[in-house]
Amino acid sequence: MKWERKDLLGIKDLSGEEISLILDTAESFLEVSTRDIKKVPTLRGKTIINFFVEASTRTRTSFEIAGKRLSADTINISASTSSLVKGETLADTARNLEAMNPDVIVIRHSCAGAPHMLARLVRQSIINAGDGAHEHPTQALLDMMTIRSRKGTLSGLNVTIVGDIAHSRVARSNIYGLNKMGAHLTVAGPATMMPRDIRELGVKVSFRLEEALQDADVVMMLRIQTEREQRSVFPSLREYSAFYCLNGDNIQRARPDVLVMHPGPVNRGVEISPEIADGANSVILEQVTNGVAVRMALLYLLTGAIE
Amino acid sequence: MKWERKDLLGIKDLSGEEISLILDTAESFLEVSTRDIKKVPTLRGKTIINFFVEASTRTRTSFEIAGKRLSADTINISASTSSLVKGETLADTARNLEAMNPDVIVIRHSCAGAPHMLARLVRQSIINAGDGAHEHPTQALLDMMTIRSRKGTLSGLNVTIVGDIAHSRVARSNIYGLNKMGAHLTVAGPATMMPRDIRELGVKVSFRLEEALQDADVVMMLRIQTEREQRSVFPSLREYSAFYCLNGDNIQRARPDVLVMHPGPVNRGVEISPEIADGANSVILEQVTNGVAVRMALLYLLTGAIE
Amino acid sequence: MKWERKDLLGIKDLSGEEISLILDTAESFLEVSTRDIKKVPTLRGKTIINFFVEASTRTRTSFEIAGKRLSADTINISASTSSLVKGETLADTARNLEAMNPDVIVIRHSCAGAPHMLARLVRQSIINAGDGAHEHPTQALLDMMTIRSRKGTLSGLNVTIVGDIAHSRVARSNIYGLNKMGAHLTVAGPATMMPRDIRELGVKVSFRLEEALQDADVVMMLRIQTEREQRSVFPSLREYSAFYCLNGDNIQRARPDVLVMHPGPVNRGVEISPEIADGANSVILEQVTNGVAVRMALLYLLTGAIE
Repeated sequence: MKWERKDLLGIKDLSGEEISLILDTAESFLEVSTRDIKKVPTLRGKTIINFFVEASTRTRTSFEIAGKRLSADTINISASTSSLVKGETLADTARNLEAMNPDVIVIRHSCAGAPHMLARLVRQSIINAGDGAHEHPTQALLDMMTIRSRKGTLSGLNVTIVGDIAHSRVARSNIYGLNKMGAHLTVAGPATMMPRDIRELGVKVSFRLEEALQDADVVMMLRIQTEREQRSVFPSLREYSAFYCLNGDNIQRARPDVLVMHPGPVNRGVEISPEIADGANSVILEQVTNGVAVRMALLYLLTGAIE
Repeated sequence: MKWERKDLLGIKDLSGEEISLILDTAESFLEVSTRDIKKVPTLRGKTIINFFVEASTRTRTSFEIAGKRLSADTINISASTSSLVKGETLADTARNLEAMNPDVIVIRHSCAGAPHMLARLVRQSIINAGDGAHEHPTQALLDMMTIRSRKGTLSGLNVTIVGDIAHSRVARSNIYGLNKMGAHLTVAGPATMMPRDIRELGVKVSFRLEEALQDADVVMMLRIQTEREQRSVFPSLREYSAFYCLNGDNIQRARPDVLVMHPGPVNRGVEISPEIADGANSVILEQVTNGVAVRMALLYLLTGAIE
Repeated sequence: MKWERKDLLGIKDLSGEEISLILDTAESFLEVSTRDIKKVPTLRGKTIINFFVEASTRTRTSFEIAGKRLSADTINISASTSSLVKGETLADTARNLEAMNPDVIVIRHSCAGAPHMLARLVRQSIINAGDGAHEHPTQALLDMMTIRSRKGTLSGLNVTIVGDIAHSRVARSNIYGLNKMGAHLTVAGPATMMPRDIRELGVKVSFRLEEALQDADVVMMLRIQTEREQRSVFPSLREYSAFYCLNGDNIQRARPDVLVMHPGPVNRGVEISPEIADGANSVILEQVTNGVAVRMALLYLLTGAIE
């Protein structure tokens, strides 16, 4: 199979074959980051702009490292220094970046759909690095890569996603992707954090963590946005963690070889107890390592370097 | 002709031959950014510091891309993170940067004359990326490159510059340059935005846009600094745009093949109506593309790589 | 002698042989920055993360230039954009960076001991670029390099350090290092700026600048943190400078070939009078130049590139 898309905007539009191609390509790049000389000349002379209108260290750093290990030139633009503060429209900023002839623009934006608008406007490849509460496709891809490399397959696995499902782009992208790949999905969280139409996405819904963890092969704990949500959606962090924190007790419901995942940064003791976050079932740091490989794969595929 | 200056501080000091050399060199670099591998080894092992004491995304990005496509090492220093906040003088900061042996320091500063002070202090090449309301020579050079490539020459063209002439370094640098190259210049704007001694620069002055546009080959619309000027120099944006916004009606006064230019970011509907900004006469995005080439040319010429 | 440490956390732990090895290596790298092509392929394919939780332009720039001149990939992470603002612990941030497989993490942090914690947690090399009021080993190394290159040796020299000894990581690291290398140390400053147990570090203490300067071969003036300390530790900058500013008069007490040093940024007229800061005895800018070489040496030694 050959990659044919200009952009990577979301998981919703991808076929299972496309997801598998990305994961296969990522696995082949994983080795580069373990070499003594962690660099291949694949994207020499390509320009990648990391355009982060919403702040993010780990995703930006992951993309920057991915680009550099492929020998691309990487340029960082952050919201606070961007022309956007001067009142320019996002469309004009995009066209300006286009005129400087980059090859890929990686964009994170607080508005859902911003990457899609850019993709229509400019001839370069756009990668969605997170748009509002909509999608975060590279996170879902690194999650699927992590599961597949541990379990050998995604098909038939019981995957439970726990937290603020309604506001989580990580949950949404993973639901789209894992469904396509044949996993059985359960989402869990307080009713205030559950989208009304969630069942239409083909998932089971539970409001009790213990129930949702039953026979799980994988459990993904979502980050609680303590800086934003604390007041509106639930009474207190303490109350949230009393009901939804993954710990040494409730994890017994899951399969013994359950994978514990989290997109980070972890609020220890809120979403996961420290001993589980650092325990033998946790693959949280593997997710980070795989993230660099997934981003290398996407940069490679989108710049058409595939033969 | 051979380039002999250490620094590029302003257009005022340049000869017409020097301007032509820069534009010729820039045209030869334009092609690099259209290649599959957008990189030449010309400045390998050179260090370029982008020292932006006044924020700017597009100019910094343009310089960073220009440096990287020439294989130089680029270092960004912004005001907010710089030692200047610790009370160090600009002269001491400059001497410190000098001691790290860069090859070129690109400086943007809110004080007119800051690049000139640096140029006297340090042995490295200084490029003025905008100093207060004084000069913005790389903008004028990319503007002249854009006009020349479209019209074949600068000599004899009617060029109209519209907006806040008094506070615009873009206007000042373009007036110096276009005058040297034999263009006929008209400036237009409200009386409050017109410097008193403007006629001494060899331009015609008009306070009416329709009059200033008559038979124009080129019209440059300056950016209104909405974030700063709104209150002091004119009653309201609405009033400004009623009199000075380039639109489908008043553009009829200009020649049919008039070039519409703007240094960006555009305030749509204030300086230019959207249909003109995006219309067939607009070369706004060509300006951005040429900006990378002009900056590549200057980095090349100043580092003495010319043979 | 062969370098065997994973990390460079402080001068306190280093042997004299290790310090000499670093200084010898740094001297061999000094020449690279004077070449026409200022770049060697030594660290090609290595990833260096500059993780500055406390702001610093000059140290970050020095490390970034050092890395780039060795052909390493450099990634900057600053506090304001980092996940730390999202409530992640420093340990989790460190483990996340580790998972992206960098080779060296350079960290500056306002908490003493932060680099040491990282060094225990992660398998990569950690360089302390300043931790609270604890140590600033690369500054002390560049200081010792500067003295040694000027005086031929460190042993037997009279070195006087003046200023806020109690809160200065520069003073602490220099005291450890210069003591090991056989210098005779005197510290001077107001009583409020003198740590109680300072004599245990093997230094002479003086509260009078004139006395402390007697027969000095080297005088290091520390930076007064005007932005923080002004109120608490001394009545006023004017009073401080009246007693402790190095000037054309009091410098007569020192040896005629005394070296005047300052870690920068200098508060002119507070710590040093302008004519002395710029005078024939000042080696302040040599310190900056040597800083790049010291950092190149450390990156080289720590990545095990030594044969």
